[in-house]
Amino acid sequence: MDIERMKKQLDFIVEVDKVKQIFRQTYLSDGTRKENDAEHSWHLALSAILLQEYAEEGMDLSRVIPMVLIHDLVEIDAGDTYAYDAAGLSTQAERERKAADRIFGILPEDQGAQFRALWEEFEEYRSPDARYAHLLDNFQPLLLNDASDGKSWTEHQVKKSQIYRRNRYIPEISGEIWKEMSSRIEKHVELGHIVDDLKE
Amino acid sequence: MDIERMKKQLDFIVEVDKVKQIFRQTYLSDGTRKENDAEHSWHLALSAILLQEYAEEGMDLSRVIPMVLIHDLVEIDAGDTYAYDAAGLSTQAERERKAADRIFGILPEDQGAQFRALWEEFEEYRSPDARYAHLLDNFQPLLLNDASDGKSWTEHQVKKSQIYRRNRYIPEISGEIWKEMSSRIEKHVELGHIVDDLKE
Repeated sequence: MDIERMKKQLDFIVEVDKVKQIFRQTYLSDGTRKENDAEHSWHLALSAILLQEYAEEGMDLSRVIPMVLIHDLVEIDAGDTYAYDAAGLSTQAERERKAADRIFGILPEDQGAQFRALWEEFEEYRSPDARYAHLLDNFQPLLLNDASDGKSWTEHQVKKSQIYRRNRYIPEISGEIWKEMSSRIEKHVELGHIVDDLKE
Repeated sequence: MDIERMKKQLDFIVEVDKVKQIFRQTYLSDGTRKENDAEHSWHLALSAILLQEYAEEGMDLSRVIPMVLIHDLVEIDAGDTYAYDAAGLSTQAERERKAADRIFGILPEDQGAQFRALWEEFEEYRSPDARYAHLLDNFQPLLLNDASDGKSWTEHQVKKSQIYRRNRYIPEISGEIWKEMSSRIEKHVELGHIVDDLKE
């Protein structure tokens, strides 16, 4: 038995516990508090299983699930960058790359390299697996925002153009999911929870 | 497109958001607050991937992962029953069965039946997949208890005999994991965080 190998695996498992303290801008469905990255990642993994039939390009669940489980671990060091925070977004890539070096570096080399590659694939947003993972990463907070009466959108005065820009690849990944997403977005534009900056 | 089918899937995804409000007795590794079921389930899924080489009976990760992601959803209705709460444990099975009827019943029939079967398999603790899932379900809180200086054990004055009884099947599932677990348990017995009721 390789004691050093198990030690690295367990050190990593305990280290990533910290992601439970990284809070996002999205509220839980009941609006009582914000969601953290571990909860969010759990929700994506479960949704990945339930919504797989809508991935029009196909995808490999055995790669998507680890991808969504680890996609936010870099935020342990780099923090959560809100999707509509332009200043934070400009330094995000460099902060997250350094975080990936440290965090995935805790693992035995083979497992660290596997997770690192999955995280980079996610960030590149090109493979069908990464694209489906991003669809879930955009859709899940939309469902929570919808359930909590657009609480996070209202607080941040999010604009319709920002939401459409962020979700611009969704229609190619799943027309059916995009139909559902856009219908919910429009509902909250009408309700005034999203700023309608695209009006004629 | 089957609109009713997608509606059921999305209703379920929003309903299970409530599991983020079901708190367990285990503290996070830094001891600042207790862990909730969504965070715990995320941690088990990630650990399932990383520790698969120790599953001596073998297992199928494509079944273990959904199993651990959903294993605590019944607690949305039934609440968390602490592993060492005898009174709660006597009514737990019936409360959880009713909860499973309602919660998995929200899904389209095929997906609801699949999750229900996985949950029952977990509860029966017999298949290699269920046994590996239980190993994770016992090991992860032990790692957090260890990291938080036995905070939850101390608060509940947990006895060594209770811990050994709860973990009695672990040695058959993975001798290597059990070696690590028992070494950490003994450390906390020596530190006085676990009541030593097995002393000569």
